[in-house]
Amino acid sequence: MTTYQAPLQDIHFLLNDVFQIDRFSNLAGFADASLDIRTAVLGEAAKLSEEALHPLNAVGDREGCSRNENGEVATPTGFRDGFKSLGEGGWIGLSAPIEYGGQGLPTTVATAVGEIFASANMALEIYAGLSRGAVAALLKHGSEQQKRQFVPKILSGEWSGTMNLTEPHCGTDLGLMRTKAVQQADGSFRITGTKIFISGGEHDLTENIIHLVLARIEGAPPGIKGVSLFVVPKRLIDAGGKPGERNGVSCGSIEHKMGIRGSATCVLNYDNAVGWLVGRENKGMEAMFVMMNEARLGVGLQALSQSEIAYQNAATYAKERLQGRALTGPQAPDKSADPIIVHPDVRRTLLSIRAFNEAARALIFWTALKEDLARCTEDPDERELAEDHLALITPVIKGVLSDRGFTNTVAAQQMFGGHGYIVETGMEQFVRDCRITMLYEGANGIQALDLVARKLPRDGARAIHSFFRDVNAFIDESAGSSALSPLVQPMRRSLRELEQATALLLQRLREQPNEAVAGSTDFMNLFGLVALGYMWLRIVKTANQRLAAGDSSPELAAKPLIGRFFVEHLLSETSTLLARIQAGGATVMAVPAEAI
Amino acid sequence: MTTYQAPLQDIHFLLNDVFQIDRFSNLAGFADASLDIRTAVLGEAAKLSEEALHPLNAVGDREGCSRNENGEVATPTGFRDGFKSLGEGGWIGLSAPIEYGGQGLPTTVATAVGEIFASANMALEIYAGLSRGAVAALLKHGSEQQKRQFVPKILSGEWSGTMNLTEPHCGTDLGLMRTKAVQQADGSFRITGTKIFISGGEHDLTENIIHLVLARIEGAPPGIKGVSLFVVPKRLIDAGGKPGERNGVSCGSIEHKMGIRGSATCVLNYDNAVGWLVGRENKGMEAMFVMMNEARLGVGLQALSQSEIAYQNAATYAKERLQGRALTGPQAPDKSADPIIVHPDVRRTLLSIRAFNEAARALIFWTALKEDLARCTEDPDERELAEDHLALITPVIKGVLSDRGFTNTVAAQQMFGGHGYIVETGMEQFVRDCRITMLYEGANGIQALDLVARKLPRDGARAIHSFFRDVNAFIDESAGSSALSPLVQPMRRSLRELEQATALLLQRLREQPNEAVAGSTDFMNLFGLVALGYMWLRIVKTANQRLAAGDSSPELAAKPLIGRFFVEHLLSETSTLLARIQAGGATVMAVPAEAI
Repeated sequence: MTTYQAPLQDIHFLLNDVFQIDRFSNLAGFADASLDIRTAVLGEAAKLSEEALHPLNAVGDREGCSRNENGEVATPTGFRDGFKSLGEGGWIGLSAPIEYGGQGLPTTVATAVGEIFASANMALEIYAGLSRGAVAALLKHGSEQQKRQFVPKILSGEWSGTMNLTEPHCGTDLGLMRTKAVQQADGSFRITGTKIFISGGEHDLTENIIHLVLARIEGAPPGIKGVSLFVVPKRLIDAGGKPGERNGVSCGSIEHKMGIRGSATCVLNYDNAVGWLVGRENKGMEAMFVMMNEARLGVGLQALSQSEIAYQNAATYAKERLQGRALTGPQAPDKSADPIIVHPDVRRTLLSIRAFNEAARALIFWTALKEDLARCTEDPDERELAEDHLALITPVIKGVLSDRGFTNTVAAQQMFGGHGYIVETGMEQFVRDCRITMLYEGANGIQALDLVARKLPRDGARAIHSFFRDVNAFIDESAGSSALSPLVQPMRRSLRELEQATALLLQRLREQPNEAVAGSTDFMNLFGLVALGYMWLRIVKTANQRLAAGDSSPELAAKPLIGRFFVEHLLSETSTLLARIQAGGATVMAVPAEAI
Repeated sequence: MTTYQAPLQDIHFLLNDVFQIDRFSNLAGFADASLDIRTAVLGEAAKLSEEALHPLNAVGDREGCSRNENGEVATPTGFRDGFKSLGEGGWIGLSAPIEYGGQGLPTTVATAVGEIFASANMALEIYAGLSRGAVAALLKHGSEQQKRQFVPKILSGEWSGTMNLTEPHCGTDLGLMRTKAVQQADGSFRITGTKIFISGGEHDLTENIIHLVLARIEGAPPGIKGVSLFVVPKRLIDAGGKPGERNGVSCGSIEHKMGIRGSATCVLNYDNAVGWLVGRENKGMEAMFVMMNEARLGVGLQALSQSEIAYQNAATYAKERLQGRALTGPQAPDKSADPIIVHPDVRRTLLSIRAFNEAARALIFWTALKEDLARCTEDPDERELAEDHLALITPVIKGVLSDRGFTNTVAAQQMFGGHGYIVETGMEQFVRDCRITMLYEGANGIQALDLVARKLPRDGARAIHSFFRDVNAFIDESAGSSALSPLVQPMRRSLRELEQATALLLQRLREQPNEAVAGSTDFMNLFGLVALGYMWLRIVKTANQRLAAGDSSPELAAKPLIGRFFVEHLLSETSTLLARIQAGGATVMAVPAEAI
């Protein structure tokens, strides 16, 4: 049986001290997110997660979802109450505008809360996450009537939202889409087709489900340029604004999955379902990208959340499990054996996870802050910088954090030996649940391709050069500090390696694109490590300042050590990554397909 | 749904060409394993695996095992027939002595067959593997009467075997063991205690189960020096040699596991069960090590087997799945999209698995050959060399192959995108099944500790220096070959890094043991990569010779390319591993436990 304790101390340290978000009280939402309010909000989220949502996590996995012959889907015991708490507590719309029923808080704060919910119960949080994505698309592209009609009900948790992209023959390549939309005299459309892998496509948590569906209007141009976005409620809304008659959409089956079994993954059959266009004709992909980018950052957060809860349980176990003796002699001579945390390899494993988690959380918060800036600032240069950062870092957060977050859940399970393989221990569920983060919202190979072939060269590589400027400036500032010196030299070297790889890939993209993208996953990892290393520099600098000011706690005192562990044990991989990128794609492309 | 095709071409290439096992026809067993016989044996194993055993793999996972209230355990549909085929076909005793009912073939050949069975159905193969382990311990330490009584029946598959080590409070640290044995007037013992994680501890595949059980004789010295080995049949053997009355051992429960669900993992309760001493009093650990070392090599083989079948299915899918277009323009313009194998990152992923699989197979076969040599040779120097190799390489094969084999099953699943997460696709079962290989028979952290703290320094580091001599000699021989030059330089560098790490760790072991073992996992990986790289040198050299002799096939022509891929994309990690080992344990040990 697993437990969870929200890492409030670390979250506050990042928000208050490292990123000093109180600096931004001039921006919309931030004034309503003062330290007192943040403390209260995060404290309530922690309580709900620890006491109500996490105890449902194993239940959700054990029971899973089930579909009856009428196509109705039952969620696991307790999920209805859990989802109700999220809606009634205002947790679904934490950062949504107040005028549509949201709480109006910054994305940065909502992101911190999101980690806590996802750690506690990822499968349940997915329903809320999809609702948030649907709201984001409606707010950005929907008509005022659509916003008024759907958003408040979704944010209250009375209704929920979905996104419908994938079809059986097309996942990544949405240009192959077949679902069609036929316009009616009243301006509405009739939607027909089959969508698969629809999270929350059918369930018993809410009285209505609002589907956002990509489809092709009759006569639209081929490929993704002919795709439009529609809103299709499961139950049509009657004159009083209530869910009435069933629409022509039904759940054909649900998937049996490796994990996140409490989240219903549905095949949805659209049969002349009534829908309304969201945004403009044939511009559906743009609208969908709003949801997709939000979702990709959310997936990175999910991966961190599983890495965090897996770490907590592994660290506790390592301090309790008595087995063998330290190489240097008994450390707990009064006991039958020493706790396994005396072993260097156990500590190395735990610190590898921890060193990732703290930096990954910082990277996500920093990026959430850029989202807030991009939305709220009135300075066009600042907005451009923030938007550049978001575009560039989104595939890195999705890809690197999910790859490493998954690896961390495996490493945490490993601490339990054979007991980690037993379902009741609960560690293997984190592995299975986290595995989806590498696959959905674009498998990680696609993230690497997006990073190297699209995001990197865009606008003359403006975004990555602005990242280089930031990091170089921080390194230069830190160079005089002897306390930071164990981090500064390795960071400078790794940054140079990233700069070198960048120049090489930009050149290859022009001359031999296959050579460039053969190194795309290695480049994504190289970039990710440097970004995480940069976060450690900022964390350690801040920790040192607080320690110098007389603050003290074992956690604060440990940060410079964990930061040094990061550069010695994780960041050190960058030289191998550069060497691989330089080796390029010669062998990769030369082996004929029939010999593979 | 997954398929399997035994990699016969590659197996024959290794046995016939790379290791030229026909050179050893002077050794016991080898004369009976001529090319014709090997071809027939491997062909039959392939047929049985592909047609009968693999189709049971998904069934076994879906149904799992179940225990009724009498403590009887039912295996999945078809497993009885599958196990019967293994017994009746002589597959359980392929390398066991003919006089006890075995086939008398070399371990090298039995190992090749073992991979095939484990790929096809790992959960089913585990029952046979445990039987082989029990036979090995009985043949080495049992009395002549015990051998005659138990071994032929186990090899025929009428009975099966188990090994009982772990107790609820002790896995790694067997000195904490509590199960006790009380001697009776007739020379037998009464065994009482609880054993957990007993694979095949109870099932319906055979009419009897022969348990090999570690227990402490009343009054024995504390710790592992007071542990003895006993044979305890589930049903006592009557005067006619048939299973009769039930013995005092029963299955208290079975585990719900992440994977290998067709393999029954049992809690066994011994309540005054009748048992007989195997070998000498208080020398149980020695006897058990015979089984344990065999089992550890077997676990490496299992990991390879899952990496292989996962690879096969991923490669097939990558050639069939149409999605998107190549960056360099359509490759299949007549189709709606290109197969995803056109993408460099897909190829890189597949080749990473493939480059590991071929070298891992070679490393296992090379080591199996050393087992045959250690057993059969009359030259004491050759025996010492072979035994040194086995002791040193066993933790590497167990640890490195299971870590990387598991990672490969994840990478293969990744090729399927979201479809890989669906149970029916079958790819996620390989991930879940393979996960156990990192945990059982000593979690991989224990393997790394065994390697660095015990195997490395033993006899003045004689074993690793003999490995260095072999590899250095091969590199020197190959240095003149221009065809081998892309491999030789990187191999020489990586070998130097391993030599450097070895010297450093040997010094630290004497001076600061925690500093040494903080690098144990990195060292294990460094050693593993160099050993796999050495295998690639040998494979490519042999392939080049055959190609020069006019032999040709796409597979043969691809080997030099895949070998080069290995050194550029996998072996290149060695410099990072050395850097981490050099960084040592300072940060690892400095963080106080309460901050972890």
